[in-house]
This record gives sequence, C-alpha cells and structure tokens, in this order.
Amino acid sequence: MPEPTTHSRQIAFQDRYDETHSHCFGCGRNNPHGHHLKSFWSGAITTARFRPAAQYTGGVPSHVYGGLIASLFDCHGTASAAAFNHREHGHELNDPAPFERCVTASLNVDFLRPTPMGVELLVEGVLDRLEGRKVWVEMSLKAEGTLCARARMLAIVLRPDSP
Amino acid sequence: MPEPTTHSRQIAFQDRYDETHSHCFGCGRNNPHGHHLKSFWSGAITTARFRPAAQYTGGVPSHVYGGLIASLFDCHGTASAAAFNHREHGHELNDPAPFERCVTASLNVDFLRPTPMGVELLVEGVLDRLEGRKVWVEMSLKAEGTLCARARMLAIVLRPDSP
Repeated sequence: MPEPTTHSRQIAFQDRYDETHSHCFGCGRNNPHGHHLKSFWSGAITTARFRPAAQYTGGVPSHVYGGLIASLFDCHGTASAAAFNHREHGHELNDPAPFERCVTASLNVDFLRPTPMGVELLVEGVLDRLEGRKVWVEMSLKAEGTLCARARMLAIVLRPDSP
Repeated sequence: MPEPTTHSRQIAFQDRYDETHSHCFGCGRNNPHGHHLKSFWSGAITTARFRPAAQYTGGVPSHVYGGLIASLFDCHGTASAAAFNHREHGHELNDPAPFERCVTASLNVDFLRPTPMGVELLVEGVLDRLEGRKVWVEMSLKAEGTLCARARMLAIVLRPDSP
C-alpha cells in the first residue's frame, strides 16, 4: 500500500467524487446549502474537521445536535471507505484511477457524552476490515481532545455503473 | 397503561419538552432554523411524518441524504422513548405529570435502499424494552409504503435535574 505523497494529501476524498454524485447535503461540493465536509488522509487513518454553525444545537444550546454527529460520521465514513478501497487497490488519490464510491449499509453511533458547541470537531476513521466490496470503518469524534462519540460503519463499494 | 384520549393524540411529544430543552435542530420548537419534527401516538406505536426540503439530497439529487435519515431516527427515537416511559408510568400526554426527557446512548441505522426525495416519509417507533431508565426503541422509515431504513436506539431517561 503506497503512502500518499505530500501533494495527494491535499486532496479531499470528496474532491474525487464525480460531478453527478456530488450533491450530498453533508459533503457534496455541488450542494450550495450543505456542510461541505472534507475528509483527508493522515497517514494510515482518515480525518475530517468541522465546526458546526450556530443553529445545529441539540436540546440545549450548548450541545451539538445528535443528528449532525451522525451525519458527520455518515459522510466521513463513506468517504473513508472509498479511500481505504482505493488505497487497497494500490492507488493514490491523485492518480488517474477511478475513485469508486461507497454507500452506507449500516451506521452504529455511540453517544458517549454531550458534544460541545463552539469548537472544531475532529472525526477520525480507521479501516477495520475490507472484504470484496464490503468495507468496515471505525470512527471517533473528539472535541478539543475529548472523545464524545464513536461509530462503526459497514459501507458498500458501488460498481462504476451504479446509479 | 391508559390509551391516549382523542385530545391527547393531538399533542406532539416534543410539545411536552420544557422551554430550556427545546433548541434541537431536529425537533426543537425554539430552533428557528430546524426541522421541527413532531412525533405522535398512533395506538401503541409512535409516528412522525416529514417531507425533506429540496437541499437535503444525498449524492444524487433524487435520494435523501443519509444524515437526515439518521437525524429523523434520532429525534423520533428519543421522543418516542420519553413517551413510552411516560405511558409506562401511567401518564397521558395531557396530564400534568412531568414529561421526562431522553437522550440517545446508541443509534444503529440500517440503510436498506435509497430513500426517494419529493415524498412524505413516515417514521414509526415501537417499544422493544424498558428497564429502569433504559428504553430500547425499534424504528422504521417508509416512503410511500416502501421500507427504506430501519433503526434501533437505546435511550436513557434523564433525571429531572439533569442539565
């Protein structure tokens, strides 16, 4: 498995999604209203950083909305699964090989403690297992170093001609 | 366990959240930017209906964003857990007993097929088990009668003095 070059480390996984599949509210560059989450390689793990806008509060204004936390895991998880699959096949982000998309089959989120508003959140992803077109990803969400939530995803690598 | 009266059936679970805990982006009446999801009794099960606004698309514009689906389950699940707990203690929604809030400990979502945009989604909740302050809720999300996603939640009933 090649390590990414310094150059490829600058490319977000979502930058490799094709135009027709870049409308996701969570991470699509073609969705003008969305979160535009960006996921990157950081050595063998994947990372995304996100500071929620003021309206994304939970029941109390000082905590992040649980749905947003699940959303960050969903977008970062499928992007990470696609990147793990891409790398598993010997490709770097900036090489011309197609970047196969992934969709979520299942997402399990454990909310460990309230996630504070007003700070940047760090989402990290680790490859658990890759079998054929199935990719299992483990994720964590931290606020200023404190682990607030964990997630596990089973993602499916779509065939290039999938709609 | 009393059946809700016709009158109490009109009250959304979220209408019973107190003012200071009604800021959730998903379902808080005091969040001017949010989804304002409302959950109701329907006999022994709980229901919420929601039509996603145009921006909440997934990768392709014809499918709903997975993060929104998780969000609907999260808000409907905690509201349902609170309602199941309330009813378990012999209360109806419109009686003066405090409506104890719930938070999500874990949420597991299975995405079974793409959820179409442009139609009303039906989220239903069933009580699986209630033990002390733990409530397990099973949920489904249907679009025009077709099951698109399923979820399981473990919710925790908060003590009245929780922040």
